[in-house]
Amino acid sequence: MKIKRSERLIDITRYMLERPHTLVSLTYFANRYDSAKSSISEDLSIVKKTFRERGTGTLETVPGAAGGVRYIPEIAADEAEEFVKEMCERLSESDRLLPGGYVYLSDLLGQPSVLRQVGKIIATKYLEQPIDAVMTVATKGVPIAQAVSTYLNVPFVIVRRDSKITEGSTVSVNYVSGSSDRVEKMELSKRSLKRGSRVLIVDDFMKGGGTVNGMKSLIEEFEAELVGITVFAESTFSGNRMVDEYTSLLCVDDVNVREKTIHVQPGNYFTN
Amino acid sequence: MKIKRSERLIDITRYMLERPHTLVSLTYFANRYDSAKSSISEDLSIVKKTFRERGTGTLETVPGAAGGVRYIPEIAADEAEEFVKEMCERLSESDRLLPGGYVYLSDLLGQPSVLRQVGKIIATKYLEQPIDAVMTVATKGVPIAQAVSTYLNVPFVIVRRDSKITEGSTVSVNYVSGSSDRVEKMELSKRSLKRGSRVLIVDDFMKGGGTVNGMKSLIEEFEAELVGITVFAESTFSGNRMVDEYTSLLCVDDVNVREKTIHVQPGNYFTN
Repeated sequence: MKIKRSERLIDITRYMLERPHTLVSLTYFANRYDSAKSSISEDLSIVKKTFRERGTGTLETVPGAAGGVRYIPEIAADEAEEFVKEMCERLSESDRLLPGGYVYLSDLLGQPSVLRQVGKIIATKYLEQPIDAVMTVATKGVPIAQAVSTYLNVPFVIVRRDSKITEGSTVSVNYVSGSSDRVEKMELSKRSLKRGSRVLIVDDFMKGGGTVNGMKSLIEEFEAELVGITVFAESTFSGNRMVDEYTSLLCVDDVNVREKTIHVQPGNYFTN
Repeated sequence: MKIKRSERLIDITRYMLERPHTLVSLTYFANRYDSAKSSISEDLSIVKKTFRERGTGTLETVPGAAGGVRYIPEIAADEAEEFVKEMCERLSESDRLLPGGYVYLSDLLGQPSVLRQVGKIIATKYLEQPIDAVMTVATKGVPIAQAVSTYLNVPFVIVRRDSKITEGSTVSVNYVSGSSDRVEKMELSKRSLKRGSRVLIVDDFMKGGGTVNGMKSLIEEFEAELVGITVFAESTFSGNRMVDEYTSLLCVDDVNVREKTIHVQPGNYFTN
């Protein structure tokens, strides 16, 4: 029995959404639904149009015998802005203020709906650049790295500050923690990154930039290539920041421990 | 201009897939597409049928004025089995063997396509039980917890072995590491879990069960409720395992360090 167009559209949508940045041939769908390639081709233009109109992303058509379609997730600029504004409000809640002027983020970065948006927003920034891996440092960067890697459909690697026997041989670097001026160590499993990989660094929070700088050194040690740096939130930093080029979704620009107020504004994501 | 059925089907599919376990009213879709509720109702039956036939999950209809539809992600049994078989082969690769008989897993648990399946498989196990949060221990459990939480659409919380100033007040417990008989400490941010929460524990690997047992104690300290325990892989353990009831996707049942062989079979997920 032939599959109806309506059912094909639903299943194609699901299939493509689950496989971002993956080329799927028309033949695959033609076989899957026992339908003519011409019908599949029409289906795909409807999906493409709807994705574009609803801000779901781009369905890219690759012509030729080895061609097919590829789904590129993308967030619409106004949806991204609205989300970042909402996050500014959430981050400004005074009960997030911790001793030492730190801001509690773990609840937000443990919510699937927040991580979905953060992942899409960061991925949208790097649509034009080929990326082989997303890198972050344990523990709080992990959810962000995973969210981004889902939408870019590339693996993520986790740099650790503590050595673990379950990682095998590692490469380590020393780095200066910008905010405390202490020298610390971070390491990455040797087999987790190939030479020449193009790497995107993400993290939850950046103050002095020391941790991000450590990851940059690691990328050099692996003879890999840095594509970009994006953090969920940065805080204004009075000293010399160790990293110049980066993108932030949010900027914590004032923390008043005595009056228990936090002021947060959108980061340089929209202006960079 | 009215939106055509074909475009509605595509957008409804996308909208529901992005919001598992969330009740969406017919009125919402009727407004979104400026269409009659009767048309939306027909759309939803087509989506429901296709989701069922293609093993995408269940589109549950909730009748009444406060009703609507809810998408419950679910993996088909044969797709789950096929994936677990593939993982058995991947885990058996001899170059995963690390000194001490440990098995290198980080590459697999950093791949979005693997995590998607692991998340779906574990979530499918707990469809009938209400869950408020997924709990895991840093660092390697995090990707699994996040994947599961995406499909259950509940937050995940991360237990840590090291104290961090960015977590605020914490509750800590001591636990006995089953494999080494050492007493260690783990802690969880006080504000991350409400009293009475129903908690699902997940982790990457279980040997003696000490870590999982520690998380069980933490759940008690928070006066929360344990719903279940699922690990990606367990290894056969000669001593007394500290945890009785758990589910595993994979079972590493023989590691021969001298001959460099690892034998892995499906865990008790399919028989439990």
